[in-house]
Amino acid sequence: MMAAPSVLEERAKAADFNTKCFKKERIELAGTVEYIVRGGRDIFSSLPAAFSSVKQVGVIGWGSQGPAQSQNLRDSFQDAGVDAKVVVGLRDGSASMANARKAGFTEENGTLGEMYKVISESDLVILLISDAATANCYKKVFDAMKPGATLGLSHGFLLGHMDTIGETFPKDMNVILVAPKGMGPSVRKLYVQGKTENGAGINCSFAVEQDTDGHATDLAIGWAVAIGAPFSFQTTLRNEYRSDIFGERCILLGAIHGICESLWRRFVMDKGMDEEEAFLRSTECITGPVSRVISKRGIKAVYTDMNEEDRAIFAQAYCASYEPAYEIIIECYEDVACGNEIRSVIAAGNRAKRFPVISPIDGTRMWKVGQVVRSKRSERSDDLIDPFAAGVYCATMMAQIDVLMEKGHVLSEIINESVIESVDSLSPYLHARGVAYMVFNCSFTAATGSKKWAPRFDYNLSQRAYTAIDNGDALDMKRLDDFLNHSIHPAIIECAKLRPSVDIALTGLGEDDAARAALS
Amino acid sequence: MMAAPSVLEERAKAADFNTKCFKKERIELAGTVEYIVRGGRDIFSSLPAAFSSVKQVGVIGWGSQGPAQSQNLRDSFQDAGVDAKVVVGLRDGSASMANARKAGFTEENGTLGEMYKVISESDLVILLISDAATANCYKKVFDAMKPGATLGLSHGFLLGHMDTIGETFPKDMNVILVAPKGMGPSVRKLYVQGKTENGAGINCSFAVEQDTDGHATDLAIGWAVAIGAPFSFQTTLRNEYRSDIFGERCILLGAIHGICESLWRRFVMDKGMDEEEAFLRSTECITGPVSRVISKRGIKAVYTDMNEEDRAIFAQAYCASYEPAYEIIIECYEDVACGNEIRSVIAAGNRAKRFPVISPIDGTRMWKVGQVVRSKRSERSDDLIDPFAAGVYCATMMAQIDVLMEKGHVLSEIINESVIESVDSLSPYLHARGVAYMVFNCSFTAATGSKKWAPRFDYNLSQRAYTAIDNGDALDMKRLDDFLNHSIHPAIIECAKLRPSVDIALTGLGEDDAARAALS
Repeated sequence: MMAAPSVLEERAKAADFNTKCFKKERIELAGTVEYIVRGGRDIFSSLPAAFSSVKQVGVIGWGSQGPAQSQNLRDSFQDAGVDAKVVVGLRDGSASMANARKAGFTEENGTLGEMYKVISESDLVILLISDAATANCYKKVFDAMKPGATLGLSHGFLLGHMDTIGETFPKDMNVILVAPKGMGPSVRKLYVQGKTENGAGINCSFAVEQDTDGHATDLAIGWAVAIGAPFSFQTTLRNEYRSDIFGERCILLGAIHGICESLWRRFVMDKGMDEEEAFLRSTECITGPVSRVISKRGIKAVYTDMNEEDRAIFAQAYCASYEPAYEIIIECYEDVACGNEIRSVIAAGNRAKRFPVISPIDGTRMWKVGQVVRSKRSERSDDLIDPFAAGVYCATMMAQIDVLMEKGHVLSEIINESVIESVDSLSPYLHARGVAYMVFNCSFTAATGSKKWAPRFDYNLSQRAYTAIDNGDALDMKRLDDFLNHSIHPAIIECAKLRPSVDIALTGLGEDDAARAALS
Repeated sequence: MMAAPSVLEERAKAADFNTKCFKKERIELAGTVEYIVRGGRDIFSSLPAAFSSVKQVGVIGWGSQGPAQSQNLRDSFQDAGVDAKVVVGLRDGSASMANARKAGFTEENGTLGEMYKVISESDLVILLISDAATANCYKKVFDAMKPGATLGLSHGFLLGHMDTIGETFPKDMNVILVAPKGMGPSVRKLYVQGKTENGAGINCSFAVEQDTDGHATDLAIGWAVAIGAPFSFQTTLRNEYRSDIFGERCILLGAIHGICESLWRRFVMDKGMDEEEAFLRSTECITGPVSRVISKRGIKAVYTDMNEEDRAIFAQAYCASYEPAYEIIIECYEDVACGNEIRSVIAAGNRAKRFPVISPIDGTRMWKVGQVVRSKRSERSDDLIDPFAAGVYCATMMAQIDVLMEKGHVLSEIINESVIESVDSLSPYLHARGVAYMVFNCSFTAATGSKKWAPRFDYNLSQRAYTAIDNGDALDMKRLDDFLNHSIHPAIIECAKLRPSVDIALTGLGEDDAARAALS
């Protein structure tokens, strides 16, 4: 079995692309040149050409991305006059059939059916079933597809799995990817918002793994535009799964979980803080006000907004936490890149059959306190930023950015995976429900990995960063200069210009049904 | 690259063996038949025949096992009249040269030299350098060896590494393993004790991976007897590394660390217990009195010694903890078996060059309290067993035994790796220094893995076991019957009969030098 190409080889492959239907824009981010395609409803007129070879899109699966992408595609096709049908395909007897029907996909109007039948009739097959299910049935999917049809993925996981066992895609199909940098519910929510505010939506990366007819790039970009991406950038399937599986284990879910646990414990046990106050100054502060500042004005603003006293505390927390966080992050990246994490997820999926009932992980004291704190939100302003918590969180986010830069990912991917997806897509849900709740309720791959890595961040920060501060050890304060002068800050602002600032205050998340359906 | 043989295939390979020099004994453990060789000074007369083809043993490395095995071999050769020289081989300029000289291995008397020179002159090359160093230099070692010489390993790690990259041993050498089921310092300490008490020592597994001359089995057993093994059982290199790398991540180090952290936090934060009392009832109780009871009378005695009230608490803790512990343990086993853990260790070794200075991990509040508690030991009797802590610990140990049985390891291996090594070799050191101290100071492979898995046990027990108890969830109390009727208990007693009960109260561990040298 040959070693998978390096991240840099993959990056070279993704550096440029040709599109016949869309306008490619050159941008500069942190001194490097990238090409993107700007989306928005004003370019929907390009969709008919992009989808000219497609009479039917089969969207397979109704988990997190399925409901969002199928509805967005259907709505966009109608608005743009694309002459193609969106059909949802599910396992026979799937419990999700009822939900698909509620969204207007029915057997009667020919837009709902058994998955392999839908696959065999579609020109573009968008496979949005869980990673474990994908690993189990991909060969059957390949066999069912029409000759010359296009396989669409929203995640490079399948290639990652095939890499670990030395398999490849059949040569006679197109293989493309469009990966929204946000959860399905956000993809739908912001698309709907985009109907009135052109440009709202979730950015996407796209990739062309196989192109048999020279049309794959335009089809991929068209798909991204049709689901509402404000801007799209090219990557490869391999770099996508590396950054994605890694990201959710780190700042998106795993790291933020471990950070919050470690902070709360520190505040209560070591600092004697009241339990609710401690939650307010850790989880609540990070998923709320800190995320909002980053969303609107970038990471550095968290620091520059502070008074001198708070800056000193932030600086100490930042400089003590950067290396302990970096250490875990780079370990995680390398475990993903060598296939370890994918092998673990596949094995966990097989074991899960033996342990079907797993209890939630937010029943501990801290998350119970969190419920109380959230219930009192209306009684107080939601803008308290604890400088220590902010320092730990920002250090971890920056360490993740540095690891991805060091490993050679394109800047658009780094900023979307590490910053925008985190503060604009994940944090609103984390803020509404608590981090541990979301870790438990997200996709199997993300949940499995986050549960694995969260405690690593917790232990390493507690054992190294916090003790260093408490012992008065000399800290490497140059880290703060590195932070303030980092080339990522103007690049984040550049990316922010490409889409409207998103209002991440979620309404209507009060009902458990909505949240559960959204994250299943 | 072919898949490595399964544990069961390996077990079949290890089931029986032929020895010309030693007496093979048939034993029954938990209804299965195994063959062992009983050691002791009274059979040293068999050593000259076992070592007949060996004029020089090269012991390469001076870490944990090197000092113990080289000295034990030299002493045994002298006592038994074996006509072979023990020569220590080290890197040129190694800082360990001075320590080897102190132990009587010198250039002047021809028993100390540069490692590749020693390797090229030895008939049996016992390679005891670190796993990372082994992975880096094994090809050079193979090249340096005399044709027909024997490579001796004390750990299957090298085969595990070669499995992950698809390589094999050169066909013209014998490859054998003797793996003491205890740390180097214990191997030496108990060997010295065995001079007056025949039978004291650390049990060993042995394996014959390649046998070019029909003499490899006797040489392996001879080696085990000469370093003081009370009894030796056969395994394979693959099953050895699977059970060994796994064991240190679980009950030996990783699990016990996570358990202690979770218990202390629970006692202090959720139960309002005084911090010293909480340490006394968690770490101190597990590494001290609970380990001693298991060492002398088996796991079940921990429960049967208790009064009714304590039994009820133990039962609750046991039944709530078994599954959360099992879940992490089987994940760890499968990550080891598929090569993930070995890949991670190799990658961590490469990264370690970038982060040479890593601070200890026992600077947190809990371990500082632990120092105070240990310093007051003389003021109190050291026999308090907290039934809750004991229940959690015993459940984890039993879950590890069940995973290894399920995976098909021989009972001798299971009992030695999961019970005897834990309570007789590790616990005394953990008790003297604290668990986090030992995790930090053990071998790189063990430290890397324990730091990874400890927090997993902590989180899963806190999130699932303790919350289930506090919420009054229905517990699966059948687990207690499974425990009390488990076939492992008589098998442990059977194994205990094969060697004298060990007094694990370590004296002379007060000096930092001794502990550091022992564990480097």
